[in-house]
Amino acid sequence: MIALQSYVRGQWVAGSGDPVRLHEPATEAVLGEARPAGVDLAAALAHARNVGGPALRAMTFPQRAELLKALAGKLHEHRDELIDIAARNGGNTRGDAKFDLDGASGTLAFYANLGLGLPAGNVLADGPGVQLGRTPRFWGQHVFTPRPGVAVHINAFNFPAWGMGEKMACALLAGVPVVEKAGTASALLAFRMAQIVVDSGLLPEGAFQFLAGSASALLDLLGPMDAVAFTGSSRTGALIRGNRNLVARNVRVNIEADSINPAVLGPDAEGGSDTFEQFLANVVVDMTQKAGQKCTAVRRILVPAAMVDEVRDALTERLRAIKVGNPLDGDVRMGPVASAEQLRDVRAGLQALAAAADVVLGGPEPIADRGYFVAPTLLVARPGDAAVVHELEVFGPSATIVPYDGTVAAAVELCNRGGGGLVASCYSDDRAFVEGLVAGIAAWHGRIWLGSEKTLGQALGPGAVLPATIHGGPGRAGGGEELGGLRGLQPYLQRTAIQGDRAVVGRMFGLDAHAT
Amino acid sequence: MIALQSYVRGQWVAGSGDPVRLHEPATEAVLGEARPAGVDLAAALAHARNVGGPALRAMTFPQRAELLKALAGKLHEHRDELIDIAARNGGNTRGDAKFDLDGASGTLAFYANLGLGLPAGNVLADGPGVQLGRTPRFWGQHVFTPRPGVAVHINAFNFPAWGMGEKMACALLAGVPVVEKAGTASALLAFRMAQIVVDSGLLPEGAFQFLAGSASALLDLLGPMDAVAFTGSSRTGALIRGNRNLVARNVRVNIEADSINPAVLGPDAEGGSDTFEQFLANVVVDMTQKAGQKCTAVRRILVPAAMVDEVRDALTERLRAIKVGNPLDGDVRMGPVASAEQLRDVRAGLQALAAAADVVLGGPEPIADRGYFVAPTLLVARPGDAAVVHELEVFGPSATIVPYDGTVAAAVELCNRGGGGLVASCYSDDRAFVEGLVAGIAAWHGRIWLGSEKTLGQALGPGAVLPATIHGGPGRAGGGEELGGLRGLQPYLQRTAIQGDRAVVGRMFGLDAHAT
Repeated sequence: MIALQSYVRGQWVAGSGDPVRLHEPATEAVLGEARPAGVDLAAALAHARNVGGPALRAMTFPQRAELLKALAGKLHEHRDELIDIAARNGGNTRGDAKFDLDGASGTLAFYANLGLGLPAGNVLADGPGVQLGRTPRFWGQHVFTPRPGVAVHINAFNFPAWGMGEKMACALLAGVPVVEKAGTASALLAFRMAQIVVDSGLLPEGAFQFLAGSASALLDLLGPMDAVAFTGSSRTGALIRGNRNLVARNVRVNIEADSINPAVLGPDAEGGSDTFEQFLANVVVDMTQKAGQKCTAVRRILVPAAMVDEVRDALTERLRAIKVGNPLDGDVRMGPVASAEQLRDVRAGLQALAAAADVVLGGPEPIADRGYFVAPTLLVARPGDAAVVHELEVFGPSATIVPYDGTVAAAVELCNRGGGGLVASCYSDDRAFVEGLVAGIAAWHGRIWLGSEKTLGQALGPGAVLPATIHGGPGRAGGGEELGGLRGLQPYLQRTAIQGDRAVVGRMFGLDAHAT
Repeated sequence: MIALQSYVRGQWVAGSGDPVRLHEPATEAVLGEARPAGVDLAAALAHARNVGGPALRAMTFPQRAELLKALAGKLHEHRDELIDIAARNGGNTRGDAKFDLDGASGTLAFYANLGLGLPAGNVLADGPGVQLGRTPRFWGQHVFTPRPGVAVHINAFNFPAWGMGEKMACALLAGVPVVEKAGTASALLAFRMAQIVVDSGLLPEGAFQFLAGSASALLDLLGPMDAVAFTGSSRTGALIRGNRNLVARNVRVNIEADSINPAVLGPDAEGGSDTFEQFLANVVVDMTQKAGQKCTAVRRILVPAAMVDEVRDALTERLRAIKVGNPLDGDVRMGPVASAEQLRDVRAGLQALAAAADVVLGGPEPIADRGYFVAPTLLVARPGDAAVVHELEVFGPSATIVPYDGTVAAAVELCNRGGGGLVASCYSDDRAFVEGLVAGIAAWHGRIWLGSEKTLGQALGPGAVLPATIHGGPGRAGGGEELGGLRGLQPYLQRTAIQGDRAVVGRMFGLDAHAT
């Protein structure tokens, strides 16, 4: 059994307090334990601010990009070992584990590439300069510079690798040291990654610290230059956003939370068409990849009423073919959910959904004597359009078909009843339908994925988060924003308007200054 | 005496509850009263969301820009009448009143011009598109679209015209209806402006509503598409940001709060130089314009120790020449502060400063039998560098000279002790000093104003907020951001990543789609 440690102030330290056990979700065997307390959090923050931050900011954007590139390579070197850990502690199939791990190294590599093209300094011009006075002599230029604080990343259990990787890529490139808190249930993977990061010796001292225990007391210690990025439940998200210290000191908070992501099948997408086939394939991937434990997975499948039977039958057939079991068995295509707590929550959620929808496949009942297994579960909402279908995120291999009348207006209204989401997808080759849907739902969603004949075989589905486009959504989804290329650095940078003599401002801070 | 009314759901309504009296600060005469309650706030919000928002979004950016242009003209038509009200209820000199009113109409006109150049629709492309798949066919484009919510603007008493004007310019151009809450002490001006806006008939029904009473109960009624923008004290700002409903529903909150703005005199700026003269002139303007009641006014004057006596004497001489009195008297150059409450706070603040700084001119003592007058007050911080000098915003005609050793490092450290500010200014022609100061303080300030020989006569001083550059600052200053050209629309727009076939995404939503 592995006793997780935290990496703080240049040392690995064991925690204290009652241990939290980490399990193998397929067998319920105990793999490790984490102790919540025993880390001097104030000292960790001071170390980041006083040692890690200055060391990072003594480098330029391209120099930090080189670090990310090397880190990506280092993680890739350990890929097989990490896949094994993900299978054991995360219940991941090999495909799930790769999705997580390659997402981490891919995002680090993406930001490395992006950073290599940034100016060799610590100032980014934000747009062109502007004339401010009566003559062009008095000039304004907005710039971004690294904030001299610390980035506290509170990661979710479902993507221990990618979640940590994408958050640290953005902060470190921006020049801000990180404190990474792992989601406990699956923390063995993050712990091993942290060891690899530390052992690599690539990062300057203080730039990377890792918490195996609780981070909640950290929040009371943060100041105005710090940032918190959290991925997890709306409930915990609200506790963080409402934390008195964070509120009083206007600490930046970025939250990714619940999202009842809709997929809309357009009335033009006939059975057998490329568009229809993509729809089926993507829905099945979202429902079963990572056992449905993706914040971007489809939860509501909006289908024109006339097509519901066809869609239900086609999905049922495909889902039935998914072998569920211990991911260490080679032909298994879906593993268990991550923990006993998740199993309990998913079952309770399915029961709640069943009050408003018919279960046509799977359901909340246990399917194994041991292990945190849930059957792929497809439901069809009954007439009456109960709120639970639109508001309850069941974080497992489950989605609900919601019939609609085939009009854009009805699809828009149903999508937006999610109260703000990370991603909506649409499958249609009817331009008016697509344009109407986008116009109606854009403000409620951080991302819209448009499937059509032309996208067949061209793209990962809507459940995949790509570093070039933003990840986040309004309302229930947390109101946060991550990634999106350079946009992903903004939580860690301060925008400042510089005003003065054009010759000085332009030369020092303008776009011209970027030319080397 | 004028009984203020609120404009809600297309009607002027009297409030209820115990009246709050509005005074003439120069004479303490009662001019009007506002009643805090009696407005159906939920109905007002519904009206904005269901009537005003759809009407605004049935127009395009350029069409809404035309409305702003017409509004700016309408306010300008009433300029003399409004100046009189500002003098009476705001204690403003004619110059103060113009600064406020021309700021309002100027900002409306600025956003009108900006909006006329935007695409004739409701989608703004956010940067270029990006390739997302293995081939260029799968494409991403970030867009901004108007959020279908309501903008609640809680304005400060010090700029009743400009504060309301700049906030509504951004929201209305974005396509979001506004509910404007006036700062009570000076609400007569905002009330009259609201009448002019309503009487103009320019705005669609529901796009503009006005509250003369309290807005605090509004916060509990807002949802995920709404936004709150607040200008005022850090204490009230924290109550807003920490409001349970706003936290739970991830409602957007934008706050401008306290700022202990520093002005740094460079060691190279010799007495008599153009740079030195600008420094003196701008400090005097900031201390006396609006009786120092500007959130951007200088509060800390960082002066190389060897130059402190010269600066003190020069400022004292200029401040002594400022005639303080009833702004209705023509030769008066500084009026009273806005209310009895402000007078009490300013006096208490000056007493607190006096514990750590020597009063060399003015002070907390009363200077008139009647009216809320405060003497222009200059202090010099004593050695020991007490926190109060850096952390207490005294919102009146007061600033403190803080000696420093003439090094960049010392200036940076002192500036940043403000804990996050709206604007810092620097007066120097030494490029290394300027560059070092900017690098050291940028992350702690939303704006940096650089005075040099070349800026003489070219620009308004650092206390002026220009619509082309952002207004806001981190930490104590609230962590918010307003204005800055198009950036000012962002609180009211949702960013969404659209992913799909390049032909569809680019044509519908990309930069190419903007060509008309």
